[in-house]
Amino acid sequence: MEQYSSKELQKQIQSYIESLSYSRDPKGLYDPIEYVLDLGGKRLRPVLMLLAYNLYKGDVESIFSQATAIETYHNFTLLHDDLMDNADMRRGKPVVHKKWNPNTAILSGDAMLILSYEFMMRGCPVEHMRDVMDVFGRTALEVCEGQQWDMEFEDRMDVTVPEYIEMIRLKTSVLLAGALKIGAILAGASKEDAQHLYDFGIKSGLAFQLQDDYLDVYGDPAVFGKKIGGDILCNKKTFMLLTALKEADSTTRAELERWIIAENYDPSEKIASVTAIYNKVGVGDICQELIDRYYKESIDCINKVSVPESNKRNLLDFVRNLMNRNV
Amino acid sequence: MEQYSSKELQKQIQSYIESLSYSRDPKGLYDPIEYVLDLGGKRLRPVLMLLAYNLYKGDVESIFSQATAIETYHNFTLLHDDLMDNADMRRGKPVVHKKWNPNTAILSGDAMLILSYEFMMRGCPVEHMRDVMDVFGRTALEVCEGQQWDMEFEDRMDVTVPEYIEMIRLKTSVLLAGALKIGAILAGASKEDAQHLYDFGIKSGLAFQLQDDYLDVYGDPAVFGKKIGGDILCNKKTFMLLTALKEADSTTRAELERWIIAENYDPSEKIASVTAIYNKVGVGDICQELIDRYYKESIDCINKVSVPESNKRNLLDFVRNLMNRNV
Repeated sequence: MEQYSSKELQKQIQSYIESLSYSRDPKGLYDPIEYVLDLGGKRLRPVLMLLAYNLYKGDVESIFSQATAIETYHNFTLLHDDLMDNADMRRGKPVVHKKWNPNTAILSGDAMLILSYEFMMRGCPVEHMRDVMDVFGRTALEVCEGQQWDMEFEDRMDVTVPEYIEMIRLKTSVLLAGALKIGAILAGASKEDAQHLYDFGIKSGLAFQLQDDYLDVYGDPAVFGKKIGGDILCNKKTFMLLTALKEADSTTRAELERWIIAENYDPSEKIASVTAIYNKVGVGDICQELIDRYYKESIDCINKVSVPESNKRNLLDFVRNLMNRNV
Repeated sequence: MEQYSSKELQKQIQSYIESLSYSRDPKGLYDPIEYVLDLGGKRLRPVLMLLAYNLYKGDVESIFSQATAIETYHNFTLLHDDLMDNADMRRGKPVVHKKWNPNTAILSGDAMLILSYEFMMRGCPVEHMRDVMDVFGRTALEVCEGQQWDMEFEDRMDVTVPEYIEMIRLKTSVLLAGALKIGAILAGASKEDAQHLYDFGIKSGLAFQLQDDYLDVYGDPAVFGKKIGGDILCNKKTFMLLTALKEADSTTRAELERWIIAENYDPSEKIASVTAIYNKVGVGDICQELIDRYYKESIDCINKVSVPESNKRNLLDFVRNLMNRNV
């Protein structure tokens, strides 16, 4: 059975997505969709789906449509989230509601969501259709729930760490998990294996998101894709901030709260001061420990999957790489 | 075989929809969905689906979930359209983006679209699933295309009557047609019958929308649900306006165009003057002729359906009633 590395799969799904054309009218509806899907990105979710499928079967091209579905769904969420967050740029390019207008972002997003269902159905073997659509529908709804919690958290000062973990599980992890599970289902995996791969997606997604929170504070600007301290400046309720608020003594907590409500401040001073508080409280270590735990648990899930160890190499390499791990 | 009148079916589907509860968290996501679905309305699309099913089979309750799907989809489009049009009220109640906020309208709408797919899949026999989902997906996308054309027409002065007819076919007719076709498919109708019922939906939808355009000018305020002249005041490019612009002599056309660009005017004077122009050009008669044509063509489609004539009575009564017809 042919085994593909994540890099090869990424290349294949990238050219498949590029080859799709939306030549239907009205152009005002379909041009923004093509624009968003051509912005690129890591194609993380389709690659995960293909890697899961490739644990069992070699003909990965037979599920390119389903892999495109998950990427189309993901890009739909980015399109609507960017509008709701009033973001300006995505992957170095203006977002749809700026390049076109908010109504275009709403309607083209809606059409993308419908298209993602179209791609998911297309060529889906009838014996797997209900299972695939059940996972996809439930996942799609949970991602909306995650986005709703995320927006509600902005106006709340009493968000707990478990609430935050549940939010990122919904907003980030379930789509990775769903992609993996759908890949497994389409390959005819057992229910147990499909569930282990789902659980792997949940745990590694949590580890990945927490790492993102960590790197916003302690990342190397040359390596980390975004500016360091972005979350600190906008008081984003990340694991770092919530843990600091929870673990700090009352004096330190008061200092942190002053920075949260501060207006007119020097950005680099705010980043330095909040980082100093995180250092004092030991937030970095607490976060690293949790990342380690979720990462190890995710690997345990892969270990339980009933395929030859050699078939797991590409999936393990991929997650190791993603988490910058040697083990 | 049990035969149900449209009134009975409306009552049944209404209480089915009311009985659904969305007790999932977060409430900020699901409360607006329940609010929108509980606003009521004629439940036209689910009733059409049930009537089509009831041509062949008596156990209409077996497709209540699919009937709810089409109503949920329709209400999703109203929710997002109201946001895009910046409307204030819907069925006498504040719209979601006013009662909550625009982000809630976007995200709850997205969740409704996903829920409509969930309802469509739920209990759908596996042998019909692909056909049902194909019709639903294509229809859902076409409705978005119709809305996009409608928005683009607002900024254009060169919209033709055929373009307008195509827009209302997409925005209004295909969903009625899709509802009927899905009902037929689920009842095991032949491909030909399913297509006749689809075509009936297209034609009667066009007749219904044109009648709406007509009644905005010539309706009885006591009977017509909306204020007379609403389309005239906002220069909506209805069949009436487009036909007047096309058929008027140059002097009359210039007068009409002056009213279109006029600012500071007396509303009732504008309505009276534009109506006088429509009278002079004979727009009402042209519209009535086209309504008649589409209505007759729609009845021809029902006549071709291969079920006993007695089974067609409720569907025919329903469309006659909708169009205020005696024949």
